[in-house]
Amino acid sequence: MTAYEKFINIRSINQSILCVGLDPTQEKLPVIFKREVNSIYFFCKSIIEATQNIVCGYKLNFAFFEQYGVEGYEILKRLFDFIPDNLLKIADAKRADIGNTSKAYAKSIFDYFNADAVTVNPYMGYDSLSPFFDYKDKIVFILALTSNPGSQNFQKIMINEKPLYQYVVENSMTWGDLKNTGFVFGATHPEELDLIRKIAPESVLLIPGIGAQGGDIKATLKANKNGPAIINVSRNVIYSSSGQDYAEAAANRVLQLNSVINSFSL
Amino acid sequence: MTAYEKFINIRSINQSILCVGLDPTQEKLPVIFKREVNSIYFFCKSIIEATQNIVCGYKLNFAFFEQYGVEGYEILKRLFDFIPDNLLKIADAKRADIGNTSKAYAKSIFDYFNADAVTVNPYMGYDSLSPFFDYKDKIVFILALTSNPGSQNFQKIMINEKPLYQYVVENSMTWGDLKNTGFVFGATHPEELDLIRKIAPESVLLIPGIGAQGGDIKATLKANKNGPAIINVSRNVIYSSSGQDYAEAAANRVLQLNSVINSFSL
Repeated sequence: MTAYEKFINIRSINQSILCVGLDPTQEKLPVIFKREVNSIYFFCKSIIEATQNIVCGYKLNFAFFEQYGVEGYEILKRLFDFIPDNLLKIADAKRADIGNTSKAYAKSIFDYFNADAVTVNPYMGYDSLSPFFDYKDKIVFILALTSNPGSQNFQKIMINEKPLYQYVVENSMTWGDLKNTGFVFGATHPEELDLIRKIAPESVLLIPGIGAQGGDIKATLKANKNGPAIINVSRNVIYSSSGQDYAEAAANRVLQLNSVINSFSL
Repeated sequence: MTAYEKFINIRSINQSILCVGLDPTQEKLPVIFKREVNSIYFFCKSIIEATQNIVCGYKLNFAFFEQYGVEGYEILKRLFDFIPDNLLKIADAKRADIGNTSKAYAKSIFDYFNADAVTVNPYMGYDSLSPFFDYKDKIVFILALTSNPGSQNFQKIMINEKPLYQYVVENSMTWGDLKNTGFVFGATHPEELDLIRKIAPESVLLIPGIGAQGGDIKATLKANKNGPAIINVSRNVIYSSSGQDYAEAAANRVLQLNSVINSFSL
């Protein structure tokens, strides 16, 4: 089964396009956890156990594990292995480099971690992403317009009356095939999302920026026009409670978000 | 001592602006090595021992270690620890993400690995790089114009008669301070390097693309106009010989390169 088919499948079974972002830091863990690196494994594991029947997948943010060195990297691997295989496992790694280097990154993400999807940065162009597209069963999410303030610096500059992010989408949407080429599009830009859905109506979008970053969920879903999309929420779900009930609170938050999202789409 | 001061210092002591890129893959190791992951540690260690008095530093390419998972990641850490502290340790990781995520990447690179410098991708803008610049003693090399064919796709597109890479350099050169803000500029573009040296005469440049990628060393040095620069060579040095003499051969290749480079500059 390809990652795209897995997405369609789990979306229907779990009735959810919500993906939970796992961005753990020791300092933010519920108070019941010991302040040691291994606690982030048990924290994430409990969140997964509590939500695996009500989400479409998990996005593991590599930085939050790499900050703990080898110990964190090993936990990242254990979490990839722990997530049930019918759920999407997205490697949020923002990689890209020259061809032979990207090939090594793709081996790490797809062969070692067994991720279904990866986020990549388009700045270095075609040959920096093609080693990822060579894995035809996966989904490669190219950064288009990101949710952070710095998206103004370069992504929105105009090239012949077109912003750079639009130029990136138009040029890169055929680098893989339709079902393994997706885009990251921040929920903080609903007007631009409306435009991108006219250009790429069928591309899978990974949409972060709801919650802690302030994106408007309703405006986003309206602009998305029922295109295939994965809404990612990280901090707003995993830190729903700092008490013992943190996993249950995360699940309740997911159910609330599903309810809002599903009243608009699916 | 800041990374910039370390560079000036070691350049003078070792009479070299050459940096050796460590991009090891099992398949390419000299035949005397067993085909096991740990061999890449001993291979890189021997290269370092043979060249540490004739180079300015080492660039460790994270992808080549990450392709071996936790085992490779641990070797990466051991190599960072093994390199003598008077040499530049460049983390070639091409990272960048939203602010709180980049902060975690910066912790990984600078606090855990103790790198002196890092390569970062500018596509996500200011707040994606500022957590790296917060480490004022380090050098942050922002991708400007890379050495690969895909640099044509976006880096060279024109914005009001200026290519994107130039716009990136002009806008980001003040994000840190002069001595902790560098740029990656591929040796495959000597004409553009000539232009960039007019805009950023004093910025430290990390220049890959000599050797396996075909960059012309003399044209590059001429265009660089004696600005502060680190010339990186990877495969062309570390795979100089596939025999038992691989470390000696790598050192000889470095001496040859130093001789060519130093006849032009220093």
